[in-house]
Amino acid sequence: MGKKTGKQTVVFAKNVYIAGHCSLAAGKYERDSKYSGFFDIVLEDDLLGEDTWEKAEHMMFKTAALGAVNYCKLKTGDVDFMLGGDLLNQIISAGFSAADLAVPFFGLYGACSTMSESLLVGAMLVDGGFGENVLCATSSHFATAERQFRMPLELGTPNTTTSQKTVSGAGACLLSKMDLSGEKIVLKSGTAGIVMEMGIADANDMGAAMAPACAQTILAHFEDTGRDAAYYDKIITGDLGTFGSRMLADLLKKADFDLMGRHMDCGAMIFEGLPDIKCGASGCGCAASMLNGYFIKSMLQGEFKNMLFIPTGAMLSKTSTLQGCMIPCVAHAVEIERVG
Amino acid sequence: MGKKTGKQTVVFAKNVYIAGHCSLAAGKYERDSKYSGFFDIVLEDDLLGEDTWEKAEHMMFKTAALGAVNYCKLKTGDVDFMLGGDLLNQIISAGFSAADLAVPFFGLYGACSTMSESLLVGAMLVDGGFGENVLCATSSHFATAERQFRMPLELGTPNTTTSQKTVSGAGACLLSKMDLSGEKIVLKSGTAGIVMEMGIADANDMGAAMAPACAQTILAHFEDTGRDAAYYDKIITGDLGTFGSRMLADLLKKADFDLMGRHMDCGAMIFEGLPDIKCGASGCGCAASMLNGYFIKSMLQGEFKNMLFIPTGAMLSKTSTLQGCMIPCVAHAVEIERVG
Repeated sequence: MGKKTGKQTVVFAKNVYIAGHCSLAAGKYERDSKYSGFFDIVLEDDLLGEDTWEKAEHMMFKTAALGAVNYCKLKTGDVDFMLGGDLLNQIISAGFSAADLAVPFFGLYGACSTMSESLLVGAMLVDGGFGENVLCATSSHFATAERQFRMPLELGTPNTTTSQKTVSGAGACLLSKMDLSGEKIVLKSGTAGIVMEMGIADANDMGAAMAPACAQTILAHFEDTGRDAAYYDKIITGDLGTFGSRMLADLLKKADFDLMGRHMDCGAMIFEGLPDIKCGASGCGCAASMLNGYFIKSMLQGEFKNMLFIPTGAMLSKTSTLQGCMIPCVAHAVEIERVG
Repeated sequence: MGKKTGKQTVVFAKNVYIAGHCSLAAGKYERDSKYSGFFDIVLEDDLLGEDTWEKAEHMMFKTAALGAVNYCKLKTGDVDFMLGGDLLNQIISAGFSAADLAVPFFGLYGACSTMSESLLVGAMLVDGGFGENVLCATSSHFATAERQFRMPLELGTPNTTTSQKTVSGAGACLLSKMDLSGEKIVLKSGTAGIVMEMGIADANDMGAAMAPACAQTILAHFEDTGRDAAYYDKIITGDLGTFGSRMLADLLKKADFDLMGRHMDCGAMIFEGLPDIKCGASGCGCAASMLNGYFIKSMLQGEFKNMLFIPTGAMLSKTSTLQGCMIPCVAHAVEIERVG
C-alpha cells in the first residue's frame, strides 16, 4: 500500500507504469518548434477541419487520449477511469471527450498543472488498487485561450514583454499496474501543491504568478523525501517561461537551494527562437505535449534516467481579477523514472 | 486494499468515515427553507459583508470547509489533502479557500456533482493509504451563478417554467480512516459517472439534461454491485428538480427499475413551497448543504440507515452551447451507511 511521507508527498508502493503516451500539437509555431520531431502527431491546421477552435480543441484532447490507449494496445473499454481537464470554462474539451469515449470520468481543474494533477491522483487510484488502467489527459489551444482569458484575436492586440503564447497541443498518459509497453517508465512518487497567491493579477505575467507555488512544491518535495536536486537528472517545470524560470531560481536561492543546471522549463523551450515569442509558452498542452513528446522519448533513448516533473497552474479568473483579487496558483510534482 | 467491481464501481476495503461535516446556507430562500433547521450555519445576508458575491461565496466555501475540520476537533495542519471545486470559472471559491487554508489541494470540476466526486476520489485516497484525513468541499451562490451562466440579475429576467434556482450554500465532509466523531457514518462504495450529452442545450432546463447521466450511474451501480433499490433506505439525487426527477423515474422504468418511493431529490426539496420556485433548486451547494444538513442529521437521529447519494452535474458552457453543442452531464454516486 502507498503512503504519505511528510506534509505534501505520497510514495507509491508498487510500480505504476506510464504504459501509453501520446503528444499532439497543432499550428504553425508548434510545427516549427525545434521539438516538433518528438510529437506523435503534428497538425498544421489548428482548426482540424472543425468550424470552431473549441471543437478543434475537443478533437485534440480526444485524439491524444485515444493515442495513449492505443499505444499500449488497449481499448477504451479497458480504461477504468479517465482523469483530466483543460483551460476552458467547464473543462469542455475534457467533458466532450469523456462523453465520446464513454469511460468513467473525474473532471479536474488545475489550469496548466493538470497533467501532473491527473498523473498524481491517477497513480494513487492505480496503486490503491481501484483501477488497473487510468487515462490522464489535458489540452490547450492558443485561440480558445486568448478568446476566454485575454482579447479576441480579431483585435490584433500586441503582446506585452512578459506574455507567454498558449500552446495548441494535447498530451495523455495511460497509467497501468502492468508494463504493457515494456518501456519500464514508472511513476514513483508525487508532491501535491498548495495554492498560493503572491500579488500578481496580470494575465500577461503568468510565469511570475506561478513561480512561488512552483518553488514551494519543489522545496516540499525535497523536504518530504530527504532528497536534493542532485537526486534528479532533470527538474522540469511546466510553463514558467523565461522570466518565471529566473524567478524560480531566485526563490530557490533564497532558500539555499540550487537546481544545478538540471532545470528545464517546457514553456521556455517549446517556442525558443521563433519570431515574436516574448517570455515563452504556456497552456496545459505545453507541459503535456513536451512530457509525452521530448521528455519521455529522450528517456527512452537513454538520455537520462529520472525526472521531477512540475507543471504549474495559474487559476486565472477574469471576474476575480477585475474585483481586485490576485491569481491563485498551484503546482503538482511527479517523480518519473525509467527502471531496470 | 479497495477494489473495482464491475465497470464503474469501487468498494472500499476499510471503513472510510465521514468524521466531520458542515452545511452552510445564505439568503432569504435558504433561511425560509423547511430544512433550514438542519443547516449548521444559516446567514440571511448573502453578501456576508463582502463587497462582491464572488468574495462571499469564497467565504462560504472556506467557512464550511473549516467547519468540517473543526467538527471532529482537527486542525487544518491535520488535513492531508483538500479536494473540491465549485461552479465558478477557474473554481475560484475553492482555489482562494485552498490558498487560505494552505493545505495540499486537488481542484475538481464536476459542476453540481462535485460533492460526490470529491467524496468518491477522497475516499479512494484514504482507503488507499495516501492520507488519514481528506477534506471534501463545494459551494454555489445564486448571484454568482446567474451572472456567469444566465442573465445579469439587474435585468430582472423572468424564470422559465423549467428553471431551477441556484442554492447559495456550501457543504463539506472531513473523511478520515478513524471515527473521530464517534458517529459511525461510513462511505462503503462509489460509482463513477460517465459523461452523457442527450440533446439538451437550455441553461434553464438542467434537470432534463442531467437525468440520463443520473439514470446511467444508478443502473451501473445496481449492475456492478448486484443490488437493487430495495437495498437502500434512501436514494438521493442532487438537483434534478421536479421535472428531472420525473424524467429519472421514466428512464429507470424503461430499464424495468423502480426506486419504490425511496427517491428524494435535494433540488426538488430545498425550496419546496416557497414563492416563484419553478422546477426547484440547483447548484453544487444544493446537494452539499442537504447532505451535510438534513440527510446526515436524519441518519444520526436514526431516521434511516443507508443511502445512495448521487449529485448530478451539468457542465454547461456558454461558449459551446452558442456553438450548437449540447450540455455534457455527469453523476457520481456514493454509498453512505451508519454502521454498528
